[in-house]
Amino acid sequence: MHAPHNEMLSRLVRFNLSDGMSPDVSPIQRRLSNMKGMYADETAYVRLVGESDPIVYEFHDLGLPERDGAIAFGTSITHPGKVGEEYFMTKGHFHTILATAEVYYCLRGHGYMLMESPEGDWEAQELRPGCAVYVPERYAHRSINVGTDAPLITFFAFRADAGHDYGTIETKGFRKRIVERAGKPEIIDNPRWKAG
Amino acid sequence: MHAPHNEMLSRLVRFNLSDGMSPDVSPIQRRLSNMKGMYADETAYVRLVGESDPIVYEFHDLGLPERDGAIAFGTSITHPGKVGEEYFMTKGHFHTILATAEVYYCLRGHGYMLMESPEGDWEAQELRPGCAVYVPERYAHRSINVGTDAPLITFFAFRADAGHDYGTIETKGFRKRIVERAGKPEIIDNPRWKAG
Repeated sequence: MHAPHNEMLSRLVRFNLSDGMSPDVSPIQRRLSNMKGMYADETAYVRLVGESDPIVYEFHDLGLPERDGAIAFGTSITHPGKVGEEYFMTKGHFHTILATAEVYYCLRGHGYMLMESPEGDWEAQELRPGCAVYVPERYAHRSINVGTDAPLITFFAFRADAGHDYGTIETKGFRKRIVERAGKPEIIDNPRWKAG
Repeated sequence: MHAPHNEMLSRLVRFNLSDGMSPDVSPIQRRLSNMKGMYADETAYVRLVGESDPIVYEFHDLGLPERDGAIAFGTSITHPGKVGEEYFMTKGHFHTILATAEVYYCLRGHGYMLMESPEGDWEAQELRPGCAVYVPERYAHRSINVGTDAPLITFFAFRADAGHDYGTIETKGFRKRIVERAGKPEIIDNPRWKAG
């Protein structure tokens, strides 16, 4: 049941609420080997890449027009796991148009959204099912799964022309890391963080 | 566990995944009496307003800064019900900045997103749990609950400066209506629709 013309401008995309996957669009997958240098424990990193090189996270890019009036969206799935004591996480990114926000709505799992400005101000918000996190303009953001077995699944939306700057985080990292200490998540300083 | 400065720029808002409500922000509620002239069956409308004047829908406005880099978001809850044969629906609106899109992610229920351009082109997409509907730039949009007992719950996101134009729809209506015929939803012409 739809409009009587051939080319619809609206779009329906199905995402499974429990695993975040879609029968309509393939996810982009990031394996641990795609994240060289991002985890603190290099020995644990090399071992885990050699053992199974797991998929750390997956997300959707629907290829919407990169216009300032369009909204890009999809689900992001960060799988459970650790590299040493550090939880599985996304690479994290700034937007190329820095002053553009993003919203994440958590559908499943337990995690954190770790955020950081170019000046090194940082914030973290805890993600539980039903929680929406507003990532403010100018803040890089990274999803971190601190759960033991469930995936962290979020539905995200941002201005479609915002663009992604992964290089800055790849070079300087985040000021903070989230690790498991005494069985619980703890936010610690990242000794390798580079200012400016 | 959060950043060590007083004023966080990020924001955490909790929404219940099963009823769409939030302990953090009160919803804006629209009763049937707020929708005068929007349903086709005026007799049924007057009777139902007199009987119980039910809440037809509720949604959240978080009051985010109306900047083009910000993203407004929240949940929308359209309750089940009918006015005569016409299903409960939202008023529907254009964005004041017409060429701005919106995305709706369905968390629960069964409904339709009915969309219409200023030129009268229309589209409809069916909403089921897990379905995301992309409302294209320039399209007015209205949520319609075609379920029999569950609320239609969506999580929405749009550019925070988009603004809402309710007046155009209040004046001219949508070209189509969704009604129950033989126990099933059917999209029919709206005889009262006014072109241009």
